[in-house]
Amino acid sequence: MYERYWQQTGDKSTILIPGWQSMSYFSDAGSLCWFLEPEFAKEIIRLHKMVGNAVTEDRYIVVGTGSTQLYQAVLYALSPPDAAEPLSVVSAAPYYSSYPLITDCLKSGLYKWAGDAQSFNKEGPYIELVTSPNNPDGHVRQSVVNKSGGILVHDLAYYWPQYSPIAAAADHDIMLFTVSKSTGHAGMRIGWALVKDEEVAKKMVKYVELNTIGVSKDSQLRAAKVLQVVTDGCKYPTSEEGSLFDFAANVMEERWKLLRAAVRQSGLFTLPEFSPGLCRFLNSSFAPRPAFAWLKCEAPIEDCEAFLRSNKILTRGGKHFGVGPQYVRISMLDRDENYDVFVQRLSTIHLRQSMQVDETVQ
Amino acid sequence: MYERYWQQTGDKSTILIPGWQSMSYFSDAGSLCWFLEPEFAKEIIRLHKMVGNAVTEDRYIVVGTGSTQLYQAVLYALSPPDAAEPLSVVSAAPYYSSYPLITDCLKSGLYKWAGDAQSFNKEGPYIELVTSPNNPDGHVRQSVVNKSGGILVHDLAYYWPQYSPIAAAADHDIMLFTVSKSTGHAGMRIGWALVKDEEVAKKMVKYVELNTIGVSKDSQLRAAKVLQVVTDGCKYPTSEEGSLFDFAANVMEERWKLLRAAVRQSGLFTLPEFSPGLCRFLNSSFAPRPAFAWLKCEAPIEDCEAFLRSNKILTRGGKHFGVGPQYVRISMLDRDENYDVFVQRLSTIHLRQSMQVDETVQ
Repeated sequence: MYERYWQQTGDKSTILIPGWQSMSYFSDAGSLCWFLEPEFAKEIIRLHKMVGNAVTEDRYIVVGTGSTQLYQAVLYALSPPDAAEPLSVVSAAPYYSSYPLITDCLKSGLYKWAGDAQSFNKEGPYIELVTSPNNPDGHVRQSVVNKSGGILVHDLAYYWPQYSPIAAAADHDIMLFTVSKSTGHAGMRIGWALVKDEEVAKKMVKYVELNTIGVSKDSQLRAAKVLQVVTDGCKYPTSEEGSLFDFAANVMEERWKLLRAAVRQSGLFTLPEFSPGLCRFLNSSFAPRPAFAWLKCEAPIEDCEAFLRSNKILTRGGKHFGVGPQYVRISMLDRDENYDVFVQRLSTIHLRQSMQVDETVQ
Repeated sequence: MYERYWQQTGDKSTILIPGWQSMSYFSDAGSLCWFLEPEFAKEIIRLHKMVGNAVTEDRYIVVGTGSTQLYQAVLYALSPPDAAEPLSVVSAAPYYSSYPLITDCLKSGLYKWAGDAQSFNKEGPYIELVTSPNNPDGHVRQSVVNKSGGILVHDLAYYWPQYSPIAAAADHDIMLFTVSKSTGHAGMRIGWALVKDEEVAKKMVKYVELNTIGVSKDSQLRAAKVLQVVTDGCKYPTSEEGSLFDFAANVMEERWKLLRAAVRQSGLFTLPEFSPGLCRFLNSSFAPRPAFAWLKCEAPIEDCEAFLRSNKILTRGGKHFGVGPQYVRISMLDRDENYDVFVQRLSTIHLRQSMQVDETVQ
């Protein structure tokens, strides 16, 4: 979806890396996050200050190979090394489907997935993940477990004005961001964490050191360039292509309109409803237009994912997100032509098709 | 150390990445390793075929964020998910100091560091890591545990002609390589595995997906360019700067001469001795010139690392590698000016200085 914008920016967003550049493991040997490119750190702060979506003052920046690696770095940093049992990790359902898989994939003795935060009632310390706006359903969230001993981790990957009104600068202890959802550069594998506590930041750095001995310098340099172009494009809106956020906000607005129309036409599904809110950055009021559609099948169909697959629409079913199979998640960020085919197919699904199972999935 | 070579190659090794390029998570959606750039895969095969250091036929290539990530991918891939106890991981001492730290950092229930392979005598399945040439001591190695149920993993990061005669193409089930030691580009964080078994390769891909959702495309594109320049530089030796391997072999040869002279002059230390061997690639016979000096302090000094630190030489002590504190490991790949200072300092250390402790370490 973002490709079109970046094509318009032309040479401005191109980087050139000579063979002899950034060969070392180190970016800034004396700093806490010794593998963080100073240029990238500077552009992160500049972007947040302009958008106003997160407080950067008195925070350490830790760069990661995507926010996925930073999530694991947080778990490592927050788990006491010598606890008698693994630390519980929870998030309110529906939660990001990768959280349980990543948390439990190595059967760590440090931490353990403990499921839906809403039904969590174990005594003792725990980590609660707060994804806001939420993946998969797009709702703005706050913590739901109300017990002592909990540490909150805020995954703010989608807290950008193309998806959600920016009501205020987020001011949490641990906040995760990623270029894949802010600028569309998933292939860079670059994320960053804003961390208040020095010891937590140090342990996160240690994890990234153990896991991958730092983070690609090439991608950090490219991310710095891309963020710089985004910030400049907002500050000097005379440029031909306009700002990334205006561009992406318009695309998302249009896509959600098309999607809601298709859902109405089909009559089999419902979507989450959102109230409008004031965005201090775009200086207008609008309802969220999330990066995912969280579709609920209202017809008497047992497995919505299989049903849609039989209609040549690939989705991820609700059970991966801790809820029932009547829900599915669909990406709203695909290329224009794919998105158009998807809404077209969705709009023409009617109940009698629920019996036909077409194995030729796309 | 490699910087000088890459400066000489000039524009040939430069890459240019426009803002709209490689934005997706996917590189080659239909292939087993869906995040591997086809261009990079092609250059890996081309380089191995030319150098003759590893068999690439009938192998899957898995790319990783450095070979460090691939090491973890291998552990994940080889561990049965439902075993009663963690799989033992061993390597003959002195072993790479990061192996035990990485293996145990998350207290995985899948695998567990079990120390020196030479004293390993537990029944049941195990993984033996064979690093050849070995980090830290430079010796060519073979497996030492002789029991059934073992799976061998070959870390061949240093099996390149600048460090070691290439006697034959390595032909093992799982082989790990990295650009940081072959071309000097540590900052790229790019490694690759050559894997015989399809199921093992698939599980390694799964780990990289869970851990970092793939590997930086920017660094893969840059690595493809750099490997291409290396292979071309060997195939068409008329180019001004010559081949990378000739360049690096000469530097290493010279550095080892200087080091051995400094060690003789000081009289306090010894170094490993190596026999010459025929290198089929460079078509000459020479003794290994490893990327690390594995220095043994022969004087009555308890802690060689602390002793050298007091002489403004930073090393890593033997206990990290599973042996005694009379050993230290020193990198041979630093910039020329740093290397010169190091040998100069080493050559002038005499026993009476062992009592002086200078806290102003460099």
